[in-house]
Amino acid sequence: MPSDRNLPATTDQAMLLYVDSQFASPYAMSAFVALKEKGLSFDIEALDLGAGANQAPAYAALSLTRRVPTLVDGDFSLSESSAIAEYLDEVFPGPLLFPRHPRARARARQVQAWLRTDLGPLRQERSTEVVFYGPVSRPLSPAAFDASQKLIAVATKLLSHGGDHLFDQWSIADVDLALMLNRLILNGDEMSPRLARYAKAQWARPSVQHWVQQPRPAL
Amino acid sequence: MPSDRNLPATTDQAMLLYVDSQFASPYAMSAFVALKEKGLSFDIEALDLGAGANQAPAYAALSLTRRVPTLVDGDFSLSESSAIAEYLDEVFPGPLLFPRHPRARARARQVQAWLRTDLGPLRQERSTEVVFYGPVSRPLSPAAFDASQKLIAVATKLLSHGGDHLFDQWSIADVDLALMLNRLILNGDEMSPRLARYAKAQWARPSVQHWVQQPRPAL
Ligand SMILES: [Ca+2]
Ligand SMILES: [Ca+2]
Ligand SMILES: [Ca+2]
Ligand SMILES: [Ca+2]
Repeated sequence: MPSDRNLPATTDQAMLLYVDSQFASPYAMSAFVALKEKGLSFDIEALDLGAGANQAPAYAALSLTRRVPTLVDGDFSLSESSAIAEYLDEVFPGPLLFPRHPRARARARQVQAWLRTDLGPLRQERSTEVVFYGPVSRPLSPAAFDASQKLIAVATKLLSHGGDHLFDQWSIADVDLALMLNRLILNGDEMSPRLARYAKAQWARPSVQHWVQQPRPAL
Repeated sequence: MPSDRNLPATTDQAMLLYVDSQFASPYAMSAFVALKEKGLSFDIEALDLGAGANQAPAYAALSLTRRVPTLVDGDFSLSESSAIAEYLDEVFPGPLLFPRHPRARARARQVQAWLRTDLGPLRQERSTEVVFYGPVSRPLSPAAFDASQKLIAVATKLLSHGGDHLFDQWSIADVDLALMLNRLILNGDEMSPRLARYAKAQWARPSVQHWVQQPRPAL
């Protein structure tokens, strides 16, 4: 496999990131922040998911799965925010998105995978509209409350070292964890002061604020 | 960061993989196959999830999130099957679980993340009990049928090169894709001959058969 270790050919063309037009997808946010943190230039294309823009054949061909985000880098396109962050770290210079040490990197991947596949009732009852548009008044159902308690327990354990980030340095997993915590915090649901401070500090990061401050259409 | 690039200290102790006692979790299977493919020794601990064995405090401390699988490697423990496979590739010698080339590796990660977060109605109506215990008679709901058509379209595209694997060589993403296809195939639901052949060949792999042939308790 002579060329297997070569980096992909890159072009002078800026990359393109497809996101949702509400700028409310936590995964589009994660990919956006990853690009910003790497210091890469990219254009944004916002798809109106409510109008089915992601179902168009041209987009299906790029994303394979009709999901956002999708990153287009020359003749290569990639969806799934966690895969996008790994790709950026492997192919481009700049600050690392994942920790260097294999065990810390493994834990960051665990956190990313876990946040994308567990806590369903919490993600449903505290959608990211809470985060990017405003609070809802419904109390959490018992199942969503249980999920919130699980999130708090796991996050507390992961941050028990007392530092500002999950690992020695900032990583993309901090963005994902802070977003999940903010589903509760920005809605006024209960949170420990420790986790509230952590999420607030993560939220103040310029790359994150750049996403938060995007103009959004009315709901 | 002087020691950041060192590999973690390993012990002479065999690793331990926690799985579900029904040997029906697709993610436990993925981690089990990853360990087998790397040629690593490991013991298995089967947890009765129905009896809440994963809720025990000692297990919660190991897994963080009370999920299976969890891999214990000396004083390090890790859950989430995709993170486990990445860890094994980074820390141990042996055949690679992920493709070498960055773009193929990125696509493998996309496939893994996608299969873990999409196609919910299909995963629900064709649980892995279909795969490991036997078929069900309920027809697919419209939502699950749509998911099955999406799966078939994506898999057909990914395999349009005509090869035996998703990428140049076998990868852990082949295991995950074959499992998803087998939710339909082993239930007798409709499938293209091309994808049925692919899934059958993947299923015949010794590492996969080692999992398939595990003795299972009655449902
Ligand atoms: Ca729009
Ligand atoms: Ca995808
Ligand atoms: Ca048991
Ligand atoms: Ca986990």
